Amino acid sequence: MSALTPISPIAFVSQAGASEVQQWISALQAAMPEERILPCEQLDADQLAQCRVAIVANPDPAQLKRMPNLLWVHSVWAGVERLVADLGQSDLQLTRLVDPRLAATMAEAVLAWTLYLHRDMPLYARRQREHHWEAQPYVLPEQRRVSLLGLGALGEAAAAALRQARFAVNGWSRSAREAEGVQTFHGPAGLAQMLAQTDILVCLLPLTAETRGLIDAAHLAMLPPQAQLINFARGPIIDDAALKAALDAGQLRHAVLDVFAVEPLPPAAWPWSHPAVTVLPHCSAPTDRQTASAIVAANIRRYRHSGEIAANVDLRRGY
Amino acid sequence: MSALTPISPIAFVSQAGASEVQQWISALQAAMPEERILPCEQLDADQLAQCRVAIVANPDPAQLKRMPNLLWVHSVWAGVERLVADLGQSDLQLTRLVDPRLAATMAEAVLAWTLYLHRDMPLYARRQREHHWEAQPYVLPEQRRVSLLGLGALGEAAAAALRQARFAVNGWSRSAREAEGVQTFHGPAGLAQMLAQTDILVCLLPLTAETRGLIDAAHLAMLPPQAQLINFARGPIIDDAALKAALDAGQLRHAVLDVFAVEPLPPAAWPWSHPAVTVLPHCSAPTDRQTASAIVAANIRRYRHSGEIAANVDLRRGY
Ligand SMILES: NC(=O)c1ccc[n+]([C@@H]2O[C@H](COP(=O)([O-])OP(=O)(O)OC[C@H]3O[C@@H](n4cnc5c(N)ncnc54)[C@H](OP(=O)(O)O)[C@@H]3O)[C@@H](O)[C@H]2O)c1
Ligand SMILES: NC(=O)c1ccc[n+]([C@@H]2O[C@H](COP(=O)([O-])OP(=O)(O)OC[C@H]3O[C@@H](n4cnc5c(N)ncnc54)[C@H](OP(=O)(O)O)[C@@H]3O)[C@@H](O)[C@H]2O)c1
Repeated sequence: MSALTPISPIAFVSQAGASEVQQWISALQAAMPEERILPCEQLDADQLAQCRVAIVANPDPAQLKRMPNLLWVHSVWAGVERLVADLGQSDLQLTRLVDPRLAATMAEAVLAWTLYLHRDMPLYARRQREHHWEAQPYVLPEQRRVSLLGLGALGEAAAAALRQARFAVNGWSRSAREAEGVQTFHGPAGLAQMLAQTDILVCLLPLTAETRGLIDAAHLAMLPPQAQLINFARGPIIDDAALKAALDAGQLRHAVLDVFAVEPLPPAAWPWSHPAVTVLPHCSAPTDRQTASAIVAANIRRYRHSGEIAANVDLRRGY
Repeated sequence: MSALTPISPIAFVSQAGASEVQQWISALQAAMPEERILPCEQLDADQLAQCRVAIVANPDPAQLKRMPNLLWVHSVWAGVERLVADLGQSDLQLTRLVDPRLAATMAEAVLAWTLYLHRDMPLYARRQREHHWEAQPYVLPEQRRVSLLGLGALGEAAAAALRQARFAVNGWSRSAREAEGVQTFHGPAGLAQMLAQTDILVCLLPLTAETRGLIDAAHLAMLPPQAQLINFARGPIIDDAALKAALDAGQLRHAVLDVFAVEPLPPAAWPWSHPAVTVLPHCSAPTDRQTASAIVAANIRRYRHSGEIAANVDLRRGY
């Protein structure tokens, strides 16, 4: 790309606050100084018409519709269910973030909160409040069955970290998959099989038409009594009322929830004050602005040189 | 050893309750069916006089004095400071438990509670109580300096687990030591150097004359502000008043304490209700009865065959 070739601007579209938008644009601009990246609010009608590429972080879909010649939407988030819903009827190409750094951070979170449950930290916190000194029997990690819903970029990294910590790891996906040292399952029958042999269930699925409400009362009832749950994917994958009922009944021992149907979780929502729930503010695996910008820059450079669009979301399948 | 050779009985000495003593004797007896292992309370004067070997789990020292021909005390605990104090003036040989299973369990505990501090779990618990949704900035493990006091059997295993999780690991010992990927320090000057570059300090030292009260106000003041602390070794290594003062002042951000000068921790003790302390009931790394019994059995077989005593505690040095 010669410095003399005028190139179309790239729109950055986000509902984030001004300072976060500015930080994103700085990071993206630093990763690809040859491009002009502008907040879409600052583009005039001519520039909007020139835009072929938009980089987005939780965008307002109305903003995307202002770019009549848009070809490609590149998200800096890994979860793109809102974009899939908004762009479903269009011919736009969609790329979601696939970043080894993000996968490593998620694998660390899965390991951290699996160990939190494995080593009975919620129980010891309760006993501390009661000034009650009592140790639980120790369970070897080899005897703790951790089951991953989803064996994609994040699920695979989480499986490797859990295996390294010597847990017995199961994994479930849509299509048949293999992962070293992991007992794998797929499809609806595979899910029932896996749930029956699960001590800690970790959700790392995308939110799609098929996964919405997937973990319902019937599926929760397939877990052994006193199983525990971690949701680091999306809130609506788990049926909220069924989850509360299973926790209230003591059928499910504890849940760590990082994601919710409405975020921020409203102050009156039941999970905040449920004794068997740990609420996290969607912090399990934040995007790293630097590494994400480098990945977006590499994809955009490829497009400028060869016209190739690194789309990786199947709008029909939903992920 | 022929089945016809009458062998001296082995005394099991412990202040534990009857059921725990029985579980120990069953496990030990299963690991060495050729031996006669009896609770010392059940031995008559003749049998006590025959005893050359005692297997102990937190014994009453008066019981050991009842065996005039005792040569060797084999503990099933890794920490033997009480035995060192009791046997200091005697010619007895002392063996403490060195068990790879114990080291793996301790390494898991160090990783679990390091991740607990690294991923801000105490802060998120507080925010949950306040129904307050706010994520902390994410810190890469490579940028979190975890420093181990003690690089022995447990410290080395902990260092390996922390490295695998990509933390920046420092380690301190009495003599100069090397450990792969670990920045090592030794002696008093080394301690000061290490403390100055520590975000999370993990104590895995034996309690000796030299380490008692080692982590005092002066040493705590060498830590960067907002450092955090984990004590999985012995309570008296840390000066209790200095620790409370550093936590009250906010100089130290949080402490995870599994061990105390008096255990069980008395109900009125300050750590129970301090907002910056996580109290654990000495649960970080319990001895595994099966693997420990196998190790004791192997040591005793060696002694029966060759007379060799697998002593591994230097009574003068104190560990
Ligand atoms: N909490 C956070 O901070 C955070 C951060 C980043 C991402 N996330 C969430 O994590 C999700 C997963 O990310 P990823 O990068 O691992 O996605 P991915 O690479 O697309 O992997 C998705 C996995 O889910 C499986 N799957 C999808 N639909 C399924 C179905 N109906 N039945 C069974 N399995 C199904 C896929 O099966 P196949 O292998 O057969 O395709 C695949 O194994 C994202 O969608 C996002 O919502 C959360
Ligand atoms: N909380 C629990 O559940 C639990 C369970 C098991 C054990 N423990 C505790 O953990 C302790 C450590 O066990 P271990 O098996 O790792 O012991 P170890 O193999 O004897 O190692 C002790 C380490 O501490 C170092 N050290 C000793 N005195 C020192 C001093 N004055 N200055 C600097 N370094 C010193 C030693 O240095 P050198 O390498 O130079 O000798 C060595 O690296 C035990 O003593 C026990 O109290 C707690």
